[in-house]
Amino acid sequence: MNISMVKYVIGRILQVESLLLVFPLIVSIFYQEEWKYPFSFLAISVLLLVIGYLLSRKIPVKKQLFAKEGFVIVSLSWILLSFFGGLPFVMNGDIPSLIDAFFETSSGFTTTGSSILTDVEALSHSSLFWRSFTHLVGGMGVLVFALAVLPQIESESVHIMKAEVPGPVFGKLVSKLSSSARILYKIYLTMTAIVVILLLFGGMNLFEALLHAFGAAGTGGFGIKNGSIAPYDSAYIDYVLGTSMILFGVNFNLFYLILIGHIKDVLKSEELRWYIGIIISAVILICVNLFSYYESFGRLVRDVFFTVSSIITTTGFSTADFGQWPLFSQTILLILMFFGASAGSTAGGLKISRVAILWKTAVAEFKRNAHPNRVVAIKYEGKSLSKDIKHGVVNYFVIYMIIFFILLLLISMDVPDFTSAFSAIAATFNNIGPGLGTIGPAESFAHISDFSKILLSFVMIAGRLEIFPILILFNRNTWRKHI
Amino acid sequence: MNISMVKYVIGRILQVESLLLVFPLIVSIFYQEEWKYPFSFLAISVLLLVIGYLLSRKIPVKKQLFAKEGFVIVSLSWILLSFFGGLPFVMNGDIPSLIDAFFETSSGFTTTGSSILTDVEALSHSSLFWRSFTHLVGGMGVLVFALAVLPQIESESVHIMKAEVPGPVFGKLVSKLSSSARILYKIYLTMTAIVVILLLFGGMNLFEALLHAFGAAGTGGFGIKNGSIAPYDSAYIDYVLGTSMILFGVNFNLFYLILIGHIKDVLKSEELRWYIGIIISAVILICVNLFSYYESFGRLVRDVFFTVSSIITTTGFSTADFGQWPLFSQTILLILMFFGASAGSTAGGLKISRVAILWKTAVAEFKRNAHPNRVVAIKYEGKSLSKDIKHGVVNYFVIYMIIFFILLLLISMDVPDFTSAFSAIAATFNNIGPGLGTIGPAESFAHISDFSKILLSFVMIAGRLEIFPILILFNRNTWRKHI
Repeated sequence: MNISMVKYVIGRILQVESLLLVFPLIVSIFYQEEWKYPFSFLAISVLLLVIGYLLSRKIPVKKQLFAKEGFVIVSLSWILLSFFGGLPFVMNGDIPSLIDAFFETSSGFTTTGSSILTDVEALSHSSLFWRSFTHLVGGMGVLVFALAVLPQIESESVHIMKAEVPGPVFGKLVSKLSSSARILYKIYLTMTAIVVILLLFGGMNLFEALLHAFGAAGTGGFGIKNGSIAPYDSAYIDYVLGTSMILFGVNFNLFYLILIGHIKDVLKSEELRWYIGIIISAVILICVNLFSYYESFGRLVRDVFFTVSSIITTTGFSTADFGQWPLFSQTILLILMFFGASAGSTAGGLKISRVAILWKTAVAEFKRNAHPNRVVAIKYEGKSLSKDIKHGVVNYFVIYMIIFFILLLLISMDVPDFTSAFSAIAATFNNIGPGLGTIGPAESFAHISDFSKILLSFVMIAGRLEIFPILILFNRNTWRKHI
Repeated sequence: MNISMVKYVIGRILQVESLLLVFPLIVSIFYQEEWKYPFSFLAISVLLLVIGYLLSRKIPVKKQLFAKEGFVIVSLSWILLSFFGGLPFVMNGDIPSLIDAFFETSSGFTTTGSSILTDVEALSHSSLFWRSFTHLVGGMGVLVFALAVLPQIESESVHIMKAEVPGPVFGKLVSKLSSSARILYKIYLTMTAIVVILLLFGGMNLFEALLHAFGAAGTGGFGIKNGSIAPYDSAYIDYVLGTSMILFGVNFNLFYLILIGHIKDVLKSEELRWYIGIIISAVILICVNLFSYYESFGRLVRDVFFTVSSIITTTGFSTADFGQWPLFSQTILLILMFFGASAGSTAGGLKISRVAILWKTAVAEFKRNAHPNRVVAIKYEGKSLSKDIKHGVVNYFVIYMIIFFILLLLISMDVPDFTSAFSAIAATFNNIGPGLGTIGPAESFAHISDFSKILLSFVMIAGRLEIFPILILFNRNTWRKHI
């Protein structure tokens, strides 16, 4: 373990967070909030600057990073970012409990959107801003961000990038890593800006438009009103946000391909076709199921489109209380929670490409059993799928399910009913936000115990980082001297 | 598709069922029941004899059977056996609805033990006997039974056997297949007889002892009292049945090894160790969780031991209403439902050997990610695990989970709450019996719709046959002429 390098990188990342805290500080000053608000952001910003400086004072001689160090850096920094990021809330009293603040900030950075707040509207502008801003930052991964800002460790950072970018295949857009990161976040920020403008047209003020755009961009889903997006009661806003969420759930490589004019390749993308196909199927099935519940067809389509988009992209904004929908519709949403959106997007969950590969593996295995002597090859994205990727995906699924059931067991020590317990894990592990039952879209995570809040915070981080980094962080062997 | 051979074998199997119906006929005569009872069993027995004769009149010239035909024969015969086996209930009026009777008999032959009856005690002796007798017959697989009875198709029957015997590895005990089958069912019937005798010592009469022994042997779980085993209120009976269930959940190859004196090999069995380890862990965890709910420690251990044994072996007898236990205990039971007992036993579920291999695969994948350059081999049962078996197990798990969620979606069209819907699929797909919620151990499947009853009947058969045979039966390609 190259401890000095781990310390160095984490120090630099904490310095980045120190800079990020300047934004809510500005918001706080702009809105002329009470002393405690600007002070809380300033204080933590300074604290992080100092800690970051102390950790990264010495530039390490040995710069080499192995996979293990990459995983440790990633998981440690998400935990630390969430911990320090929550401190302003505690200081200014908007979220007095340290554990609640840690939960809320983990939920922000991991772009989950689960909240312990029962009254969001009671928060100050600066706190609301910082809360949603963590979605924007978390969305593309703090480390992709950090990579572009900290180019000097570039050559050693491929392992960090690999641990960070969600999905089974890590494709570099261009040869140099930090250039990839820069292109990705330029696309990301441009798209976010477009959403802001579109929301302004819908009658939101700049503050509201910004924060909701952050939530959509990061596929996070923190709202700023009690009742999430429902209080706006605007078809325009629902369709703008619904479409934005779907776009932020597309593999960002495809946007790059569009930029350089390779539209044909985009249309050929198998993952994109699966993604669109699943969304359309889900919308149709739920619409049929809810037909008799709605008086207006237009209203039905609008609510269902928004909800499906919000769930499959693991955002978690809500307009309708799907906790009241019939079980068939809820089960479809529950399955979408596990799917998630595309690899290489800001979404959580298994990712569509994994779902597609799992499905194809199942079909191939079925054929192999029906005709033992026939050779069955799996094709994906126009090529025959390499064994390494196939096994990686299938084994990931096994790990995912094992961890899921272990987590279900742990949470069931505390949450009394099965629906809430099951969906609490589904909603946090897949970085969605709201679940079903007592943690449904009309409820919050306020009533669960501190034990569960801490557990679910780590579940969100584990889900966001696709499990391995957190497992490796907590593995005894990682910290043995001789390895 | 060798249709004439399929017809021939199914004809022979239906003739076997015709013979089996003589047993409840004798019971009916012995208890001097009303005319309609002996008549119902006699009539269906004769009907099956005739149909069986017509189907198997011509001995096919081409005797070769491929995997596909094996799967088709197995799935068709389970469906037909369940259908015809349910007819006596309809005729004598004990279960007037055809769909209910099909459900109940599928549940019997698949050794599931889910019941649509709200008042079991209202049944005649002969109906009760036939109902539990299907567990005994289903237990070792109607076809293993048929194989030993129909030795003339021996050489072609390896595919049937392979489709029939549960678990990932099919180990022949001795070189000739029908000899293996005979040894297996001799062990099986001897063990059943011992359980009968032990239950007689516990104060049951012969009828009760026989039927409960059938339920334990097939890991089926049909009781003959409302309230399953609870009304006996006997620690002796609970421990005898609890232990019997666990023994019937052991790989039968191990009993054969004991018979020929290879005790050492038995003790080295990794699956047996996992099995015992999981049982002990589950009992301890649930006991700790239920500690404050019980006044007597002995009573606590007794109830928990019985319940864990009943669930992991997928039997489904009940003494305590675990639907009232705290969620943590219920979640453990739910996880055990998926585990099931050993491969090569009468139990359903994924089977312990698959669970062990999945766990080892997950650990190996974790190590591979932490140390990308290290080679990680998986050892199981003292040998390094072949890739074929590993991939077979992992791919089976993928198919299992995909089918599980598709079934969950289907059942949720009908069952209104998530807990009941989820556990209905878990309980039938894994051949357990009772679930949680509205289909918990104190309830029945009586209140679900006809659609769900038919669906769940096929789910039980699919679970029992480990999915592929039923999938292949319903696959369009299976019935194409040119393949």
